[in-house]
Amino acid sequence: MQNRLSFIPLSGIGDVTRNMYLYEYQNQILIVDCGLGFADETMLGVELLIPDITYLLKNCFPLESAPKKIVGMMLTHGHEDHIGALPFLLPQLPPDFPIYATPLTAALINQKLVEFGSSKKVQTVSLDDNKSVNAGPFNVSFIRVTHSVPDSAHLFIETPAGNFYHGSDFKFDLTPADNKGTDFQKIANLSSKGVTCLLSDSLGSERKGFTPSEEKLSESFEDAMRDCKGKFIVTTYSSNISRLNQAITVAEKYHRKVCFVGRSLINATDAAKGLKLMAIKKGMEIRIDQVKHTKSNELMLIVAGSQGQENSALTRIANGAHKDVKLFSDDIVIFSADPIPGNEVTVNSLIDLIARVGAKVIYSDLSDEFHVSGHGSADDLMLLMSLVKSVKVLPISGTFRQMVAYRELAKKMRYNPKDILLVENGMEIIFQENQSFFGPRFPVKKVYVDEISGEEIESFVLQDRARISLEGIVVIVTEIDSASGTLVDTPEIVARGFSANDTQALRRIITDELRRVLAKNTGTMRNWTYIRKLIGEAAEKRINQQLRKQPLIIPVVIEV
Amino acid sequence: MQNRLSFIPLSGIGDVTRNMYLYEYQNQILIVDCGLGFADETMLGVELLIPDITYLLKNCFPLESAPKKIVGMMLTHGHEDHIGALPFLLPQLPPDFPIYATPLTAALINQKLVEFGSSKKVQTVSLDDNKSVNAGPFNVSFIRVTHSVPDSAHLFIETPAGNFYHGSDFKFDLTPADNKGTDFQKIANLSSKGVTCLLSDSLGSERKGFTPSEEKLSESFEDAMRDCKGKFIVTTYSSNISRLNQAITVAEKYHRKVCFVGRSLINATDAAKGLKLMAIKKGMEIRIDQVKHTKSNELMLIVAGSQGQENSALTRIANGAHKDVKLFSDDIVIFSADPIPGNEVTVNSLIDLIARVGAKVIYSDLSDEFHVSGHGSADDLMLLMSLVKSVKVLPISGTFRQMVAYRELAKKMRYNPKDILLVENGMEIIFQENQSFFGPRFPVKKVYVDEISGEEIESFVLQDRARISLEGIVVIVTEIDSASGTLVDTPEIVARGFSANDTQALRRIITDELRRVLAKNTGTMRNWTYIRKLIGEAAEKRINQQLRKQPLIIPVVIEV
Repeated sequence: MQNRLSFIPLSGIGDVTRNMYLYEYQNQILIVDCGLGFADETMLGVELLIPDITYLLKNCFPLESAPKKIVGMMLTHGHEDHIGALPFLLPQLPPDFPIYATPLTAALINQKLVEFGSSKKVQTVSLDDNKSVNAGPFNVSFIRVTHSVPDSAHLFIETPAGNFYHGSDFKFDLTPADNKGTDFQKIANLSSKGVTCLLSDSLGSERKGFTPSEEKLSESFEDAMRDCKGKFIVTTYSSNISRLNQAITVAEKYHRKVCFVGRSLINATDAAKGLKLMAIKKGMEIRIDQVKHTKSNELMLIVAGSQGQENSALTRIANGAHKDVKLFSDDIVIFSADPIPGNEVTVNSLIDLIARVGAKVIYSDLSDEFHVSGHGSADDLMLLMSLVKSVKVLPISGTFRQMVAYRELAKKMRYNPKDILLVENGMEIIFQENQSFFGPRFPVKKVYVDEISGEEIESFVLQDRARISLEGIVVIVTEIDSASGTLVDTPEIVARGFSANDTQALRRIITDELRRVLAKNTGTMRNWTYIRKLIGEAAEKRINQQLRKQPLIIPVVIEV
Repeated sequence: MQNRLSFIPLSGIGDVTRNMYLYEYQNQILIVDCGLGFADETMLGVELLIPDITYLLKNCFPLESAPKKIVGMMLTHGHEDHIGALPFLLPQLPPDFPIYATPLTAALINQKLVEFGSSKKVQTVSLDDNKSVNAGPFNVSFIRVTHSVPDSAHLFIETPAGNFYHGSDFKFDLTPADNKGTDFQKIANLSSKGVTCLLSDSLGSERKGFTPSEEKLSESFEDAMRDCKGKFIVTTYSSNISRLNQAITVAEKYHRKVCFVGRSLINATDAAKGLKLMAIKKGMEIRIDQVKHTKSNELMLIVAGSQGQENSALTRIANGAHKDVKLFSDDIVIFSADPIPGNEVTVNSLIDLIARVGAKVIYSDLSDEFHVSGHGSADDLMLLMSLVKSVKVLPISGTFRQMVAYRELAKKMRYNPKDILLVENGMEIIFQENQSFFGPRFPVKKVYVDEISGEEIESFVLQDRARISLEGIVVIVTEIDSASGTLVDTPEIVARGFSANDTQALRRIITDELRRVLAKNTGTMRNWTYIRKLIGEAAEKRINQQLRKQPLIIPVVIEV
C-alpha cells in the first residue's frame, strides 16, 4: 500500500449545505461533519436533504468483514448543515467510532441525540489548549475560528501522507461578539509544519474585501431599540448565540426584559448558558406566560422562525394565532438572518403579513444593518491561503460558481492552476507526495428527510421523547425509482429499542407493506413529502398492528 | 542591574515621519530606523527635519569613556522618513556599529552613503530565510510585510528582558504588486514565543476596514492608458518600485516605451534593477534624449517631482522649461501619490499649471484610483494585534490623534487601558517582567537640514561626488536661540577627509566665523533656510581661505 491519502466529499461540494467529507488512509476513514441540506425552491414540500452514505455502508458495514473502518468523526461547528444529519445517519453507521466536537457544538448535538433516543455521546474538545485528537492514523487539532456560531473550528489533520487543513465555514472577525477571536497563531504555527492541501470554505468568494464584523450589529440593535415604543422582536437562527448575546446586551442597557419564544431557541440558549456562553442578568429573563403582564416598551422577544417556517412561533404571532404574544403597530420586528436559499418565498410572505399588521419590519433587502454574513469574502479567503501556505487548495462548501471564483483568488495568490482542485461529490482525490490525482468516482444520490429543525417537528420530537425510550425508533431507508415510482431493492431498516426477533419481523413487515402501498402509485414521483408521509403512515400502522409498538418512525427516501 | 529593557523614541511619535527609536538593555543600545521629517507648512522655506540625537551623542561619544554603547542599527524599509537622516547623522555617531537592512533598503541607503562620501556599508539581511541578526544582547529577526516599497520588514526583537515586536509601517496587502506577501506564518511563529510589547504603525487607525490592495492600481492604469492619445506621464515617489512596476507592465501591454525622468528615479530604479526587483523588456526603455524621436502615443514617462518640488523634472516640464519633454493637450499626467503634509500648496499649483496647458491631470482629490495608502487601516492594525498577541501595545508613527484612535482599537481587542501605552518623543519606557513604567524624560529639539531628496539637491550632490572624495565633507551642527538668534554653545563640527590638525583648525575657524556672522543678526529667527545658507556660505568662504579646500558643507541648525 502506498503512502497516500484520499479525500472524498460525500456531499457539500457544489451545494453549500449538507457537508460531509471523508479522509481515508489505508482503509481507515475519518469523517468530517455530517450536515443537513436545504432543498431548493423547485422541490415543493421537500424540505431537507441528508448526505448519501452508501459508500460508507457498503465499505464499513457489517463491521466484522468490512474492508474499511471508520476511526472517528470530527464536527467543525454547530450549524445544521454540519451536524444536522447526525441523528438520521448515526443509527445506520457502525456504533464504535468516537465523535469529537468543541463545547457548544457537542452540547447542541448531544441535546439532539438525546431527543432521538441515542445513547451515543459526542466528546468535547477544548479550543483553549494545544491538545490534539488521535483517531487511527489521523492526528487532528481543532483551531478556534470566527463564524456566526461560537466555538467554530478549523481542523489541522496530520496523516502519514501529509498534513491537511480543513478550513470549514469561517470569516476573520477581528471583533467577534463573544470576544473569542480566531487563533491566528495556531493556524500559522501548525501550518508551518507544511500543508499538502487547504480545503477551504468558498461561499463568499465572489464578494470583494473582507466580510464585516458582527460588531456593527450591536450598534444597529441599539439604534433601532432607542426609537422603539412597543415590543422589540428579533428573529434569527437559534444557533447564532453571539447574535442573541448582542441583542441581550442592548436590551439590558434599555431595561427591556428578554423572552425566548420557540423550542429550538430555548434548547440552543440552554446549551449556551450551560457552557457560560450566554448570561442574562438576574430578573431580566421572563417566561412566555409573563409577557402579557409586562409593558410592551419593556420587552424584547427573541423569536424562532426567521425562515418563515409554517408553524413557527413568529408565523403564529404574525397570524394573530399565538396565545401569549400579539403584534401591534408600534412594535418592531427585526429579521437578523438572511433567507436560506429556497426559503425566500415563505420569508417574504411572512414579512408581508407582519407589515400588514402595521408593525415595522426590518429585513435584509431593506437594510443590511441587521445581518452580516458568517462566511469570509475574497480577502478573508486569501488571508487564510496566506496563513496556511499549502501546496494545493480545494474549495468546499460553495456552489460551482463560487468554487470558480475561489479559483481566481487562488490564481491571484500565485497558485499554479494544476494545484487548484475543483472537485465534485463522490470523487476520490488522491494525494501522494504533494501530487494529486483523481481516483474512481461513485454516484451520490439525493436523500430526502422530513423537516426536523423547524419548530413544528421539534416540539413533536420533544413530546415524543418519552415514546422513543419506551417504544424505540425505526429509520426506514427506501430507494424509489423516480421515473416509475416503484421500490428499488428491499428497504433498509435500522431499528433501536427492539429485540433481535422483533427487528427481523420489522424488516419483513415494513418491506411487505411498502411494496403493497407503493404498487398503488404509478407514474413519475414528484411529491416526495407525500411519499415519505405515505411510507411513515403505512409502517406505523403495520408495526402497531403486528408488534403492538409505536416507535418514532423516520422515513428516508432516496431518489434513484 | 535589573533585568529590564527601555524603549526610547527619539522621534517618530506624534509627528509621523522622522522615525528613530532606541531599545536599550544594560547600557547597550539598538537603534531602529533613522529617518527624515517633513516640516509643516508654517515653516516656510524649511523643508527637512532630522532626529535630535543629543541623547546618543551625550551617552555614546567619545567612545572610550562613554557609559553606553550602540550595538547596531536596524532599518525597516527604504522610505526617506525611515532612512533619510542616515547621511546626516552617521558622521556624528561612533563609527563601529553595524547597520542591517533588507536588500532594497540596503541598496537605497548604500547609494546615498556613497554620494555622501561615506565608506560605511549597510549589511543586507535576507527576508527569505529564518536567520536572525545578533547585536549585543539583541537578537533581531526581519519579517517580510507589505508596504508601498518592496522589501519592507517588521522586526522581532528578542532581549533578555522580553520580546518586542517592532511593527513599522505596513498594510496587509494580500495581492501586492511584487507578489511577495506578508510572511504571516513568521509573524505568528515568532510571536508564539511571547511578546511583551507590540510597537505598531498607527497612521491609518482612523480609517475603517482594511486598506485596499495595490492591485487595483493596475486596473486604473490600464483604464487610463487605453484612452490616452498622447504621452502617458506618471509621477510618484521614486522609492515606490512596485507602483512603477505596475505602470511598466501596463505600458508594455500597450506598446509604450518607458522613460525615467529625474535623478532620484533613475537611482532608485537602478537599485531595484540590480536586485531584480524591476525588469523592463529589452528595447522598451529609452533615454530622455530619445523621447523627442518617439511618437507621443508610444510613450510612458515616469517623472520625478510628485511633491511639486521647485526644480524637479515635472515642474520644469509643466513650465515648458524641460529641454526634452514638452506637454501637449492630449497628454495625461497622473499623480500616483498624495501630497506629503506640508506640500499641498506646491502640489496644487503644479496641478494647476499642468491643467492650464490643457493636459488631463488625474490626482487624488479627483480620483482615488491612482493612489492607495501604504499604511494599514483599523482592521489591518487589529489583525496584527491578533497575530502578535502581545501583553502591551504602543502606537508609533502616527499623530497623537491617530495614537488615540489606535488606543480605541486596542480596547476593542480587549486590551486593558493600562496596557495601551501612549508615549512621547524623549520619554523612556521601561519594561520589566511584563510591567511597564515611565523613566526620565529628556527634551528633544527640532533639527532642520536642507532639502536633500529633491531633484535640485540630488543632482548637486552627484556633481559634487568627486569633490567630496577629494575635498571632504563637513557637517556643522549649530544650536541657535530662536528668541535672540544667537549661537548657543560652540558649534559641533564633524569632518571627514581632513587631517587631525586640519580638523582642529576647522573647528576654530568655523566657530569664530559663525559667532561673527550671527552677531550681525538680531531678533527672532524665523527664516531658518536663510540662516543655514548664511552658515554654509560663511564656513565655505573661510575654509577655502584658510585651508585651501572646498568640502561639501552641510549646515544643521537646531532651534533651541
